[in-house]
Amino acid sequence: MKLLSPADQLFLWLEKRQQPMHVGGLQLFSFPDDAPDDYVAQLAEQLRQHTTLTAPFNQRLTSRMGQSYWTEDHQFDLEHHFRFEALPTPGRIRELLAFVSAEHSHLMDRERPLWEFHLIEGLQDRRFAIYTKVHHALVDGVSAMRMMKRMLSADPNERDMPPVWSLPPRQRNQDSSRPSLLNSLSHLLGESGKQIGTVPTVARELLRTINEARRNPEYDSIFHAPNSILNRKVTGSRRFAAQSYSLSRIKAVGTAFGATVNDVVMAMCASALRSYLLSQDALPEKSLVAMVPVSLHRDDSTEGNQVGMILAALGTHLSDGAERLRHIHQEVRDAKERYASMSAEEIVNYTALTLSPACFHLLTGLAPKWQTFNVVISNVPGPQEPGYWNGAKLEGMYPVSIVMDRLALNMTLTSYCDQIEFGLIGCRRTLPSLQRLLDYLEEGLAELEQAVGLAP
Amino acid sequence: MKLLSPADQLFLWLEKRQQPMHVGGLQLFSFPDDAPDDYVAQLAEQLRQHTTLTAPFNQRLTSRMGQSYWTEDHQFDLEHHFRFEALPTPGRIRELLAFVSAEHSHLMDRERPLWEFHLIEGLQDRRFAIYTKVHHALVDGVSAMRMMKRMLSADPNERDMPPVWSLPPRQRNQDSSRPSLLNSLSHLLGESGKQIGTVPTVARELLRTINEARRNPEYDSIFHAPNSILNRKVTGSRRFAAQSYSLSRIKAVGTAFGATVNDVVMAMCASALRSYLLSQDALPEKSLVAMVPVSLHRDDSTEGNQVGMILAALGTHLSDGAERLRHIHQEVRDAKERYASMSAEEIVNYTALTLSPACFHLLTGLAPKWQTFNVVISNVPGPQEPGYWNGAKLEGMYPVSIVMDRLALNMTLTSYCDQIEFGLIGCRRTLPSLQRLLDYLEEGLAELEQAVGLAP
Repeated sequence: MKLLSPADQLFLWLEKRQQPMHVGGLQLFSFPDDAPDDYVAQLAEQLRQHTTLTAPFNQRLTSRMGQSYWTEDHQFDLEHHFRFEALPTPGRIRELLAFVSAEHSHLMDRERPLWEFHLIEGLQDRRFAIYTKVHHALVDGVSAMRMMKRMLSADPNERDMPPVWSLPPRQRNQDSSRPSLLNSLSHLLGESGKQIGTVPTVARELLRTINEARRNPEYDSIFHAPNSILNRKVTGSRRFAAQSYSLSRIKAVGTAFGATVNDVVMAMCASALRSYLLSQDALPEKSLVAMVPVSLHRDDSTEGNQVGMILAALGTHLSDGAERLRHIHQEVRDAKERYASMSAEEIVNYTALTLSPACFHLLTGLAPKWQTFNVVISNVPGPQEPGYWNGAKLEGMYPVSIVMDRLALNMTLTSYCDQIEFGLIGCRRTLPSLQRLLDYLEEGLAELEQAVGLAP
Repeated sequence: MKLLSPADQLFLWLEKRQQPMHVGGLQLFSFPDDAPDDYVAQLAEQLRQHTTLTAPFNQRLTSRMGQSYWTEDHQFDLEHHFRFEALPTPGRIRELLAFVSAEHSHLMDRERPLWEFHLIEGLQDRRFAIYTKVHHALVDGVSAMRMMKRMLSADPNERDMPPVWSLPPRQRNQDSSRPSLLNSLSHLLGESGKQIGTVPTVARELLRTINEARRNPEYDSIFHAPNSILNRKVTGSRRFAAQSYSLSRIKAVGTAFGATVNDVVMAMCASALRSYLLSQDALPEKSLVAMVPVSLHRDDSTEGNQVGMILAALGTHLSDGAERLRHIHQEVRDAKERYASMSAEEIVNYTALTLSPACFHLLTGLAPKWQTFNVVISNVPGPQEPGYWNGAKLEGMYPVSIVMDRLALNMTLTSYCDQIEFGLIGCRRTLPSLQRLLDYLEEGLAELEQAVGLAP
């Protein structure tokens, strides 16, 4: 029996019918060369044999004296968690994304361990997919990605590999604390592990902090994001859109502009958001502001601890793509330099403060007086070498994150070999046809290539 | 804009994460003889063209001054409501039931019209299925069944038949009021159409009525059901089990015993419940009590208005099947005779009173002091002639009803040609392996046949 951490408790509080708080990952595999046509069905049959569970996959929520705990589920039912499913004809990526859109909209059963593993057959061209869904109170996005990586092998000949719920237990990495949208808040609210009281207590504490910060000119920049359709209340249905983009192309653009890969990726997002909002006749006059978890290393490495979150104006008011990229590059550099002059404690406070207004509005349901950011753009490090699972090659992996009230779109990306893998999740009613963002991302990259004379 | 009726409002109040309040139907079709292999995909493409909606399929909930209304959805998104899906290999009925179990566990998006239509390919033997899901606040089970019937044609050569959401509007049958578990309550709480206040008001009114009734010896029989595992709090995941049984066999047993079809069906349920509870080591000493909507016509016709609900002890304490059937036959006859001496108003009051304790416990979340019944067994009239939809023959249709706190199992059945179609829905955590009930139903029928010398 283990008490929930304050951050995990927050994820439970924030969850409601229109706002599920689980994260997901979509992995695309190709069949091994020698695989029979019913390869995926055989795989499903093998997976059903793995009935030995390792933590946290055997842990369910229980409540005692008003406190939430993780305890072992003694009525474990693998059929509920492992689901073998199929895509309808013609089995394109389009049908796969529709499948994930629907599944990611569904709340999970809180009386059971909060995870689901969907093995999906019926994809064209001898491919199959895995969609994994885990509650954010159970693992954060980065830990989920790490688990996905641990599931893979570099050896295409390895077989009999266990599924993620049966992986041998591993020592937890103690210095793996990385900010997700809410993890840092526990720092603001007291020491990690200490019990958070109730929603009103937390909201009151947040409001006090916010009001203090607003009187401090140093924090002034935090409160200046425009209002936009991205920042409305959300409904319960989601649309998931995902696509791979060439890392080489993105690197080439970065080199030509003297910018980082992350700068270029953000410029692609900025361009896509501008095109989308224009198509909806909803582009704010002022630039949108993105909240971006960043590496504080100067070498732009995507590995290692990244304990900062920056706010960056995306230049969506600028019509020229190249100008937008330079703007973003400068914004990110300024923000990192601000961090450079801060102590570790100041960084934690600043980060938590960035998130406070969003959390306050989420917890109270009140409309924001201060929009601090419009969209989350998150870059989660992924594997750089090809991975295999039971002989099947991983062709792509796409993060499926969380949509919240006032944050109707989340753009999370990861890297895999020479690919940048975008996973966009949004409220499909607040943001109609958001799948168009995929084309707009490509157009944004092409515009930057043209600006520096690179052939797309 | 139309105000919700008090009963419909109740369905919204009662809904929660572990207790969705939608009903469903599963229809099984065989391909027309001349159909190509991609027949279902072609059908899906045709259905996508039907973007003209008739009420109530275009109606969504809106809230104004604390009141709920039905209004037209001006942002209608057919892809959200009509879903083309597939079963995984090997595409047996088992995979179909697993699919429906999962889908029926999911809450619907309340910001949209509360219905979903799932067209399912990938079934063995050139068959396909339709699973329809509609919120009970939008239509009741009987209206849903009527719509399903209207969708069908007696002519196997008819093509270009519209889906249910595009059927031409029809005059509503005004005298079609039939009790569902909660509809009658609006009578108890005031005139239909009059506004119900709040949950506490309703609960207080129910409690007053119940306490008055308990002082009246005439109503004494209402409060004597035993406690059982069927009457625990439920969790959010469901198991659906469905099967067809031969109506001729059931009729033959009825004739041999001098009992009605409905008596035999209830005896099958009683036998199955007894076997299941024995297997779980959870059979109460006292007989389980079923709540059964019945026809008040003396000729046992399944058509026409049926405005009564009876409580019938199922004789689950008796080990002999024949004895149980005779017990049930007597129970049902006694209950009907009680109704025969009542005025229409008395019947309505009695029926509402039967439901009051269950509603009180549902609304307040309190554990029952008086268990009035353990399980709902509902028989919804179905079509007697073969039906076709775009040339595909309907092979079977199974109701998917609602599970509630303290009512962890619902047994709803319907008739189709020479079949009695059972649809069992239950909480899959409270009632493990409930699919075994299907075999136990068959064993119950076989035992009755043996008792009167009929070969199964």
